[in-house]
Amino acid sequence: MINWNNLDTVGSFKELSEVARVNLAEAMTGEKGAERVKKYNSPMACGLTFNYAAKQVDDSVLEALAKLAKETELIEKFAALYNGEVVNTGEKRLVLHHMTRGQLGDAVEADGCDKRTFYVKQQQDIADFANKVHAGTIANAAGEKFTTVVQIGIGGSDLGPRAMYLALENWAKVNNTFKMEAKFISNVDPDDAAAVLNTIDVEHSLFVLVSKSGTTLETLTNESFVKDALKNAGLDPAKHMIAVTSETSPLAKSDDYLAAFFMDDYIGGRFSSTSAVGGAVLSLAFGPEVFAQFLEGAAAMDVLAKNENLLENPSMLDALIGVYERNVLGYMNTAVLPYSQALSRFPAHLQQLDMESNGKSVNRFGEAVNYQTGPIIFGEPGTNGQHSFYQLLHQGTSIVPLQFVGFKNNQMGRDVVIQDSTSQQKLCANVVAQIVAFACGKDNEDRNKYFEGGRPSSIIIGDKLDPKSLGALLAHFENKIMFQGFVWNVNSFDQEGVQLGKVLATRVLKHETDGALKAFSDIFNI
Amino acid sequence: MINWNNLDTVGSFKELSEVARVNLAEAMTGEKGAERVKKYNSPMACGLTFNYAAKQVDDSVLEALAKLAKETELIEKFAALYNGEVVNTGEKRLVLHHMTRGQLGDAVEADGCDKRTFYVKQQQDIADFANKVHAGTIANAAGEKFTTVVQIGIGGSDLGPRAMYLALENWAKVNNTFKMEAKFISNVDPDDAAAVLNTIDVEHSLFVLVSKSGTTLETLTNESFVKDALKNAGLDPAKHMIAVTSETSPLAKSDDYLAAFFMDDYIGGRFSSTSAVGGAVLSLAFGPEVFAQFLEGAAAMDVLAKNENLLENPSMLDALIGVYERNVLGYMNTAVLPYSQALSRFPAHLQQLDMESNGKSVNRFGEAVNYQTGPIIFGEPGTNGQHSFYQLLHQGTSIVPLQFVGFKNNQMGRDVVIQDSTSQQKLCANVVAQIVAFACGKDNEDRNKYFEGGRPSSIIIGDKLDPKSLGALLAHFENKIMFQGFVWNVNSFDQEGVQLGKVLATRVLKHETDGALKAFSDIFNI
Repeated sequence: MINWNNLDTVGSFKELSEVARVNLAEAMTGEKGAERVKKYNSPMACGLTFNYAAKQVDDSVLEALAKLAKETELIEKFAALYNGEVVNTGEKRLVLHHMTRGQLGDAVEADGCDKRTFYVKQQQDIADFANKVHAGTIANAAGEKFTTVVQIGIGGSDLGPRAMYLALENWAKVNNTFKMEAKFISNVDPDDAAAVLNTIDVEHSLFVLVSKSGTTLETLTNESFVKDALKNAGLDPAKHMIAVTSETSPLAKSDDYLAAFFMDDYIGGRFSSTSAVGGAVLSLAFGPEVFAQFLEGAAAMDVLAKNENLLENPSMLDALIGVYERNVLGYMNTAVLPYSQALSRFPAHLQQLDMESNGKSVNRFGEAVNYQTGPIIFGEPGTNGQHSFYQLLHQGTSIVPLQFVGFKNNQMGRDVVIQDSTSQQKLCANVVAQIVAFACGKDNEDRNKYFEGGRPSSIIIGDKLDPKSLGALLAHFENKIMFQGFVWNVNSFDQEGVQLGKVLATRVLKHETDGALKAFSDIFNI
Repeated sequence: MINWNNLDTVGSFKELSEVARVNLAEAMTGEKGAERVKKYNSPMACGLTFNYAAKQVDDSVLEALAKLAKETELIEKFAALYNGEVVNTGEKRLVLHHMTRGQLGDAVEADGCDKRTFYVKQQQDIADFANKVHAGTIANAAGEKFTTVVQIGIGGSDLGPRAMYLALENWAKVNNTFKMEAKFISNVDPDDAAAVLNTIDVEHSLFVLVSKSGTTLETLTNESFVKDALKNAGLDPAKHMIAVTSETSPLAKSDDYLAAFFMDDYIGGRFSSTSAVGGAVLSLAFGPEVFAQFLEGAAAMDVLAKNENLLENPSMLDALIGVYERNVLGYMNTAVLPYSQALSRFPAHLQQLDMESNGKSVNRFGEAVNYQTGPIIFGEPGTNGQHSFYQLLHQGTSIVPLQFVGFKNNQMGRDVVIQDSTSQQKLCANVVAQIVAFACGKDNEDRNKYFEGGRPSSIIIGDKLDPKSLGALLAHFENKIMFQGFVWNVNSFDQEGVQLGKVLATRVLKHETDGALKAFSDIFNI
């Protein structure tokens, strides 16, 4: 029997809070710092490494974290999840996104079928469909190949797939696996759909409508918008649109779509990039083989997350250091700073993944908790951020833990030498410099030029951003957030916080308002 | 004589902190809420309104804020700034970005010329140049028109102009003022430049190199990257490139550029969107008339910022409510949530504007301050954010003040009716619903479905996002941040926090490293 307890009732948490604090600036200065960089490394899958030398930890803290991991039974909870327990207690659902990329434990049967078989079948169906589209067997009414794929979805049906597409777009171009350009329509702002439609050739475009329930208002509205455009161009929408949905949704068996591919209630939107939600658009854009490599990377990282040894389980380690920062050191935010332009939207995806999963004030039993849960996540790629908000990170009155990501090589292989170094070398030199600048700071008699240091960061270092390492990177964060949810004893897999706004918006549209709601509606002439 | 005092030494700040707290959920419920919505409105320029009904304020708080504004001499400090005092004490510079769009007070002479005349001259030169490019008088070697403009810059030379371009791109397309597509290269990651170069036709592209000092390493590196590409295409880079820089920079009189346009040391990078930095790319993309309207909107808002009456000075009011939230209520972040897809990068620009300006721990005399200064800024457009991080905003353990922006009309005029309402109506209904949901919350026996409320927000409401209202919106935030800097007694116009990273990166590239710096460099094989 697993024990699900609030963090503040766990003995090892109290012990953790009593361990002597690490003076990070001191620890990272001089040869001691070099030793930490070599020692505080945890290998990940696909050539990635999690380096936490510049986190505010030492062997004593790590020992206390290992004890906390054991007492909170993180490995057992993960096993319960992948073996098919109802871990999503709010919605009374299994949580099976890991199974879209592998099987970590028992076979899980639900809805009358073996779930791994079900997810693999969807991947195969998508692969067959994508191959036919690429071959021109499935084509437009004029028999011409589709050249563009447009995903219509919002939240989890948008951010993850979009971030992954951008992460691999240029890699695919230089590796000759680029099949179709992808575009994304998400916002109910009509200018979003109109702008995308203005830049594409609808006659050669295939639209992927993504909604698990088949009832997401933004997505259905944008579907209508697109159908109007197709009809206005003299085209049959049913020949230009596929659906990704659950088998029980109204979209599942509709004649309005060329084909339908399925996920189910056990795949939360924000965890759906490795399901058909990401699978359809990424397989169409880059080919099914690339999507398969992406899944392989994620699966390899999932396997590592089963490791009971904290120091050999980077996702669990990252999670626990985050809890230490949030609940003992009292830091409220985390900045995600990838030194890779291809990861430009990765922080926005992590923002959803983390804040929607762990931005909760009640535990999994629906009782209020008395401690801080998920942090606020934001970020932009470096070096751009250096010329923007890093000022506050270096010299502001708030300390923000940092999550860097960097790669030894770029994706496209084009570079230029200026002042004796390549752009790639400059990029890497900058991330290295930032880690040390944040950790060690620098004294100066002029207080305006003084850097206090003591700003903790970790970095995930890879060889190159490719489908496998991207999959591993994604799974790392998914698992990190899952482990943190376990430690905080929250349900990371529901999102009741989005409901009230929906209810009130419907009231506004039905003119069933009073008070402030009516007064604001009047201003907007709704 | 103006008094520059730390916030914690100001008597009215102490008084402010003693005013009874407003129970926001209670205040916004029922007819009282409707009255607040009507009452707590401050008209801005260009049809915009600042509504702060859902902020945690009442007449007593507002009175205390007015007293604080008076005691901290905000209007006098603003006047000192636009009349040419050395307000940027760190770098010993004037702060004249307001003068790029109007003259609020005295003529200011510096560098041997009248500065207003200088900035207007740059605008006229840019307008002449842009008109010639559009007419084909300035063309490529084959005598063909340039079709694309590519800005090469980073930080303030990128984020603001890019956000403004995206904000007006679709507006310009439907209003027939769209002249040239714009692209942006910023990151030193070589994949950034390579990806942009892959999507453009260099033969018909004009590049705008933007660096005030002419020494920004990222920008010079990307310039070389682009020059290589031009040469490889058999083109003369000097015929495809213009510079925006200061008159004293090495770029100013170089034969490497078709033309050079100037800003000066009195325009901080993050405040440079209304200078030649934004002027060149926006005038080329949309025509000089559109850029002139943008300046007009900003200028109108600047005039409002001179108003001594706090309730009639929305930028000062927004600033002071922010200070109240930061230093009395103890909130650490602000989320910027525009309900307009066109403002997709506006939050990223504000993130720089705010965090780089006020992310400081020393006052303008270089002495450490004992209070919190600038908040952490993040945001994404709604409704997208609703399906992402809003979960934490509604039900997380941290309270985050919110800054909404919404428009009654969309830019492109295309829409669709679904379930009896247009997309635009749904968009507006959602922002209205969110304000009330955050403020009032909702009780529920099921704690997982319980919304505490009390989450403060304000909203800027406009008729439509166009060049004028965009200019006003931008100036509002520039002035808000300036006023906050005055209250916190920090210098909002330097950025010493970016220096240490630069120094260390140079050491890494020169292999002059030891300790952690060397150990990390070894991992990256630099």
